[in-house]
Amino acid sequence: MQNFIFQNATRILFGAGTHTQVGKEVSRHTNKVLLHYGSGSIKKTGLYDQIVQSLRESQIGFVELAGVQPNPRLSMVKKGIELCREHKIDFILAIGGGSPIDSAKAIAAGVPYPGDVWDFFAGKRIEKALKLGVVLTIPAAGSESSDSSVITKEEGWYKRAIGSNLLRPVFSIMNPELTYTLPPYQTAAGITDMMAHILERYFTTEPNVDLTDRLCEATLKCIIRNAPKALKEPNNYDARAEIMWSGTIAHNGILGTGRISDWATHGIEHELSGIYDITHGAGLAIIFPAWMKYVYQVVPERFMQYAYRVWDVAPDFFSKTNMIHEGIARTKQFFSEIGMPVSLTEAGIDASRLEEMAQKCTEHGPLGSFMPLHKQDVLKILQTAL
Amino acid sequence: MQNFIFQNATRILFGAGTHTQVGKEVSRHTNKVLLHYGSGSIKKTGLYDQIVQSLRESQIGFVELAGVQPNPRLSMVKKGIELCREHKIDFILAIGGGSPIDSAKAIAAGVPYPGDVWDFFAGKRIEKALKLGVVLTIPAAGSESSDSSVITKEEGWYKRAIGSNLLRPVFSIMNPELTYTLPPYQTAAGITDMMAHILERYFTTEPNVDLTDRLCEATLKCIIRNAPKALKEPNNYDARAEIMWSGTIAHNGILGTGRISDWATHGIEHELSGIYDITHGAGLAIIFPAWMKYVYQVVPERFMQYAYRVWDVAPDFFSKTNMIHEGIARTKQFFSEIGMPVSLTEAGIDASRLEEMAQKCTEHGPLGSFMPLHKQDVLKILQTAL
Repeated sequence: MQNFIFQNATRILFGAGTHTQVGKEVSRHTNKVLLHYGSGSIKKTGLYDQIVQSLRESQIGFVELAGVQPNPRLSMVKKGIELCREHKIDFILAIGGGSPIDSAKAIAAGVPYPGDVWDFFAGKRIEKALKLGVVLTIPAAGSESSDSSVITKEEGWYKRAIGSNLLRPVFSIMNPELTYTLPPYQTAAGITDMMAHILERYFTTEPNVDLTDRLCEATLKCIIRNAPKALKEPNNYDARAEIMWSGTIAHNGILGTGRISDWATHGIEHELSGIYDITHGAGLAIIFPAWMKYVYQVVPERFMQYAYRVWDVAPDFFSKTNMIHEGIARTKQFFSEIGMPVSLTEAGIDASRLEEMAQKCTEHGPLGSFMPLHKQDVLKILQTAL
Repeated sequence: MQNFIFQNATRILFGAGTHTQVGKEVSRHTNKVLLHYGSGSIKKTGLYDQIVQSLRESQIGFVELAGVQPNPRLSMVKKGIELCREHKIDFILAIGGGSPIDSAKAIAAGVPYPGDVWDFFAGKRIEKALKLGVVLTIPAAGSESSDSSVITKEEGWYKRAIGSNLLRPVFSIMNPELTYTLPPYQTAAGITDMMAHILERYFTTEPNVDLTDRLCEATLKCIIRNAPKALKEPNNYDARAEIMWSGTIAHNGILGTGRISDWATHGIEHELSGIYDITHGAGLAIIFPAWMKYVYQVVPERFMQYAYRVWDVAPDFFSKTNMIHEGIARTKQFFSEIGMPVSLTEAGIDASRLEEMAQKCTEHGPLGSFMPLHKQDVLKILQTAL
């Protein structure tokens, strides 16, 4: 087990009806916020009105910045930074899923920084950030309590991540009822994203990580069990609640303690969704099984354990590879059954830009740690995923 | 699933050698501490000297209060409060296991409070507390990141608990190497304590708590697997590390999210160790199996799941009770195998004061929530445990 430092101070308010407490929660920190959200679906569902009412009841003023797109953009982040400076706002309230939350985090880092906020995505350390709060409506990215943010720079379509404990929201309100209206495709993409967050941590070369192995497996099993229920009965509170809380646990940092995580699949996927603007979860469903097939020989025992404990594949003491391939096949089949594409072709992506993507995601060195991947490795994985 | 609020901001520094960072960690908060510890075994092992050196290197002054006993006492808490007031100390550094940490928490609550600190143990809400930090040497109580403290009032031997988010340590340093010198009995008592913390949460009447069920089972399985290793090879870093981190996860609050926990066994045990001053973990090993036998009929399915998932008892579709009793028997056998007493008689306790204990722990109403226990119920459980 590796030495580690872990701290996650996000206050979670979880459950039916909790979103009406947003004004009270914000009032512990400030009296004016930047209200940051996406497409306006929160207006259709009535959530917007309820949040505005709650803010007004707590005498919280707000300036709005709507229109955050999936795979949130740098230009929007810059708009947010300007708005916060102009209106002297010190708190950002993100409503939605990973996109507005990640956008809010980048704004939070950018406001007190005199330089270009993209510097942080190029590796500069964040020293200061505004506070942010969250009302979560899409369980997926885990951004509601994670320390990270992923932003796409339109110029060159670079999709890059930052991480800092300063970016963890001070509170996140999580009401599973708000996820009832999520369309099946988005529900499934979110499920895939949270599973991928666990798998990136699970596949490590670090030995003796028994507790976190088991916690990862537990969370995966819960997601696998509840995903079909949530898809079949969108208003099933319990299934939605299990999925929502699993998405946070998947990415709040605990499952990665003491381990060296991988993140190669996310790196490859960022090129996919950066260039083709496909849903992040769909990209992960395509890449992860292909990555597994390419790397399993590094620690086959870990893939046997995965097959046995997560997918109930019967131990095969005569053939390691039978078990391993069965575990990978069930992973892929699950993604397919919940409605995700599991090949590039299925997602309408051909071979024409594979080399470009492989080049781009390895230009600063090899990807991942389970098996460090160079350009040719990534290319082979992308070809396997065709 | 129940609505819940969860926040745990304790900063964990985990791993080999981390205790030498204590001065640096303290210096983020203050320049003078109350150094609070137990019997002086930290002087024999050299830990005391290393901590003092680290504090000096960071220019941290300190006043000492040593001699915290197991089942920490109110009189010591009062001494600590006086010392902090006298020396204008605003930070307590606890070194050891649950006893000095719990004592430090009670001091932290008491210093800014003009009344009697025992008021909090009688139900008064804590509004303010000093900060505290921890160097953990005994993995057991989970107090290193929990919100609770248990103190014994010598007058009448009342052992009572308080809980508040204000009592969570701001940091906890956890070096598994520091646990190498723990005697087998204390190691086993700690293991039992952390398992009990999970079991108190696991046995709930709340339906649809799939994720936390599985996280509980995962942590239990990790403890069950690593306990014999840590006992057989006291210097096995990996086994000690798994046990140490499991003890925190067991009690940091996550495993209880969305559930109604029970805590009747702890309530009964507090009378045992309050009156007979036996080790808390040993008391729990005696009471838990007896409690299980008495209450399982409330939700037999939960006990079947426990037997199957935690103890690998084969499902028995023709007899619920076979499975359930096998699960309980394996629990008891495990406690016995790691060296705990599993009956009152084994611990040298006879039937003479059972009624007194049953009376005392139910004097403010029934105990627990899985099955609310009245005096007669507690008496029967104690008789079963003889």
